[in-house]
Amino acid sequence: MYRPQIKVIDCTVRDGGLMNKWQFSDDFVRNVYRALSKSGVDYMEVGYLSSEGMFSREEMGPWKFCAEDDLIRIIGDTEKTIKFSAMADIGRISYDDIPPCAESSLDMIRVACYVHQVDKAIYLAEHCMDKGYEVTINLMAVSTVNQRDLEEALDDLAKSRVPIIYLVDSFGFFYSEHIDVLARKYIESLPGKTIGIHGHNNQQLAFANTISAIINGINFLDATLYGIGRGAGNCPLELLVSFLKNPKFDVRPLIEVIEQEVLPWSKKIEWGYSIPYMVTGTLNQHPRAAIAHMESNDKDKVTAFYDQATLLPV
Amino acid sequence: MYRPQIKVIDCTVRDGGLMNKWQFSDDFVRNVYRALSKSGVDYMEVGYLSSEGMFSREEMGPWKFCAEDDLIRIIGDTEKTIKFSAMADIGRISYDDIPPCAESSLDMIRVACYVHQVDKAIYLAEHCMDKGYEVTINLMAVSTVNQRDLEEALDDLAKSRVPIIYLVDSFGFFYSEHIDVLARKYIESLPGKTIGIHGHNNQQLAFANTISAIINGINFLDATLYGIGRGAGNCPLELLVSFLKNPKFDVRPLIEVIEQEVLPWSKKIEWGYSIPYMVTGTLNQHPRAAIAHMESNDKDKVTAFYDQATLLPV
Repeated sequence: MYRPQIKVIDCTVRDGGLMNKWQFSDDFVRNVYRALSKSGVDYMEVGYLSSEGMFSREEMGPWKFCAEDDLIRIIGDTEKTIKFSAMADIGRISYDDIPPCAESSLDMIRVACYVHQVDKAIYLAEHCMDKGYEVTINLMAVSTVNQRDLEEALDDLAKSRVPIIYLVDSFGFFYSEHIDVLARKYIESLPGKTIGIHGHNNQQLAFANTISAIINGINFLDATLYGIGRGAGNCPLELLVSFLKNPKFDVRPLIEVIEQEVLPWSKKIEWGYSIPYMVTGTLNQHPRAAIAHMESNDKDKVTAFYDQATLLPV
Repeated sequence: MYRPQIKVIDCTVRDGGLMNKWQFSDDFVRNVYRALSKSGVDYMEVGYLSSEGMFSREEMGPWKFCAEDDLIRIIGDTEKTIKFSAMADIGRISYDDIPPCAESSLDMIRVACYVHQVDKAIYLAEHCMDKGYEVTINLMAVSTVNQRDLEEALDDLAKSRVPIIYLVDSFGFFYSEHIDVLARKYIESLPGKTIGIHGHNNQQLAFANTISAIINGINFLDATLYGIGRGAGNCPLELLVSFLKNPKFDVRPLIEVIEQEVLPWSKKIEWGYSIPYMVTGTLNQHPRAAIAHMESNDKDKVTAFYDQATLLPV
């Protein structure tokens, strides 16, 4: 029997755009939007919410900003058929540049933060709530956070009005045992709140860890089409939708848009499991060195990468 | 704390050879052999045990036969540093063609069978035991076997002398819940025996399901370098060895031989996650239609494949 509280958030454009600086055509975004709507996915994360001028529109494309005009171009003349989400990084968006929800096509704003930024994240998230948005806080890189700091952050989040808190495996380090322990910890520390999961696929565990999260009572589930995303990528949406039992889900539109829009990108940019990402994942390191290695001409020299990554500090 | 009973079986040459009809050079096999030895892997499955004449040596290469001369060419003049295993398919090897273990470089013979072949498998496996080999029976495709037939097969296996029985997810269909239930069932039904796991990666769950198997008390673990294998491939050995805590394991030689021998093959033949394999996995179907599709010129037409695979029988 399916759990009606479960919501699926597609991050194809937002997380996939980290790979190509959001150089997706409007047709790409529109076809993803239509496919997600048809397949019963609950939210589409269309990009980041940034103040104009914080980045170059020419370099970063529209989905680094998610301005209302951009969103309307995707929706077209018909009624919007899925909820839109955008991610906000602390310091990249001025409060004044966030329109009231009633004047925006965005439904949800997700604030990403590291553990030392939790107060700022709560402040921004509650500001967005007051403007009428659904909000989440996505606490990143918790695989490197010590117990005391995590407990203080969870305590702060428990006292906030923010209703949805994400467990984020930024480095693709966690095994299912970690997810079991952390999911229980989040649920116990955050009474009355909804917990989300965002995995990375460095160890081919993003989907498996999402299943572990579901089993442990986590209800907000992030995924992307064909796992597209920075580095090793994400939990593949088509696997997640095939796993979930809610009869509203249909995997066929996802397969169709993968064929039409995502497979062509898979020939131009590279994501998914590879040895450098596996190495940083198993070592609980940020993938930036692996990303740089994979973009170099020496990407197949994986032993040299391993030796560098495991060098003991002098 | 690690579990000393855990043994890792590399199937790179045997299962990877299903993709290229075992057209691996002696150097490939020798370098894999040396790397596995250095990394602390317990067994190397070098191929299939077949009677000469059952296949063409020219077409299938030496590792479809695993004759003693072939094995000696790999080992060279020094003492063998890892146990060798070969897989036997029922009907492909005459009993007379199996040398006594004392005259062979093989240490273990693994008999693969479907549920209706269990009696034949026991007969062959016990014959190999009597010749001095370690043996396993690998019961394939159990995701399509009904409860009564599985229980009868397990009952027969329990009464046999065969000490190691494998749970094989031939179609890459199982989620961790299935592994939990089946691992417990195998362990309860086969008192005193060791249980093994062999996964496939159609849903990117081969490694995760191997972890679930370990948690549930399964001790013989199959994997291949970089997941090489037919279709979606197998549990990646480098991930498994990084996960296991026994201090004897070292992942570096595996990364080195992946760079040297496996990455070049990954440019010539294709394995790993793709939509057709995902479709047959989620539908609990044999991957043969997906393999044929991936070898065709229409391999990116994944929606047509999905429609064909989900067609209701007339």
